Amino acid sequence: MPKRVLRFHFDYISPYSYLAWQQLGAFANEHNLQVDLKPTLFAGLLNQFGHKGPAEIEPKRIYMFKDCLRRAAQLDVPFAPVFSHPFNPLPSLRATLLDMEDSTRERLVTALFHATWAKSRDVGSAEVVAEVCASAGVPNALERVRDPEIKQRLLHASREAIQLGVFGVPTMIVDNELFWGTDSFPHLTRYLRGDDPVQPEDVEAWLSVPASAQRS
Amino acid sequence: MPKRVLRFHFDYISPYSYLAWQQLGAFANEHNLQVDLKPTLFAGLLNQFGHKGPAEIEPKRIYMFKDCLRRAAQLDVPFAPVFSHPFNPLPSLRATLLDMEDSTRERLVTALFHATWAKSRDVGSAEVVAEVCASAGVPNALERVRDPEIKQRLLHASREAIQLGVFGVPTMIVDNELFWGTDSFPHLTRYLRGDDPVQPEDVEAWLSVPASAQRS
Repeated sequence: MPKRVLRFHFDYISPYSYLAWQQLGAFANEHNLQVDLKPTLFAGLLNQFGHKGPAEIEPKRIYMFKDCLRRAAQLDVPFAPVFSHPFNPLPSLRATLLDMEDSTRERLVTALFHATWAKSRDVGSAEVVAEVCASAGVPNALERVRDPEIKQRLLHASREAIQLGVFGVPTMIVDNELFWGTDSFPHLTRYLRGDDPVQPEDVEAWLSVPASAQRS
Repeated sequence: MPKRVLRFHFDYISPYSYLAWQQLGAFANEHNLQVDLKPTLFAGLLNQFGHKGPAEIEPKRIYMFKDCLRRAAQLDVPFAPVFSHPFNPLPSLRATLLDMEDSTRERLVTALFHATWAKSRDVGSAEVVAEVCASAGVPNALERVRDPEIKQRLLHASREAIQLGVFGVPTMIVDNELFWGTDSFPHLTRYLRGDDPVQPEDVEAWLSVPASAQRS
């Protein structure tokens, strides 16, 4: 049976993306999915929608870290204080878009997430990211990410995400259906099995709900 | 054994608050909790933090409704297209703060959530809200909510929420620990059992993570 494609939109800046990635390999195997990796600049989504990230609201920032500690403990995956947050994710995102084999890219994503959220490495530094790349089998990343073509790839990927309806990370897309956040795996599971309770007529009905109040 | 107090911060405008309320009664019984009802103006939190609600971001708005349909199906609770969204929640929030017995207030909260998210009633209308109040045993709500003292109570409740670190709804607070969202019940359960993986030294470590990037 041909594999269904799951687009995985993620940013290394997002600890929830890290936690989703930790589950995605086993999930994809179980459900016979081909994972299409989509590095997506979270800041670009926030700019697009005039929104704030959780780390930009002080009480939400510390809550997010505690929430991720709790989820990491449940998943039994490491979660160590990040070197800085928010940090500049561009070196990691761009490195992930370099030309390489799919299996290498998977290894690189794992290595970069691990460096960020388990090893407290300074992944805002292009040099550190290049080191992680080299260890994952991606040589000369420091020079190669400077290629304007790579910057364009990230811009293109982020624009494409917005066109698909992505408003946050992680977002998993199968067919044209979005599943946002680490807690959406159970919903995605039911969708893949044909058991999604959301019917097209529901979507129509909810889309036609009008607004009657707005904040001044 | 004396009951522990759980503060439940909610707004009728929030479908996740509705879904949390549907679970809270059984949860409180199971864990011997006294639920302290805290109507909280979500728009006030958004204004405080310069944030946007999910209904204010178009792709997130429809995603939220689908997500809630999926969660409602799992919980086996009704979830019907709301009459409007966002709507003005002030009549419902203020009515909930009228003087009444605790048991009446619980009945009223259930009735108002049901009117909003199961019965598609126009709860932006003070008259409709007063009808729901009357059916829940709260007479003359239309006149009584006009009391400036009631408006003050809602303002005070929302300010108090912000002081406690509340940034969204629903938020459940036990001791001084916040649990945000319908998916935080498992975390709260472990906290109540003394099994919270978050230790004070973790909080210290994460609080001291510096920012090194910000959006322009």
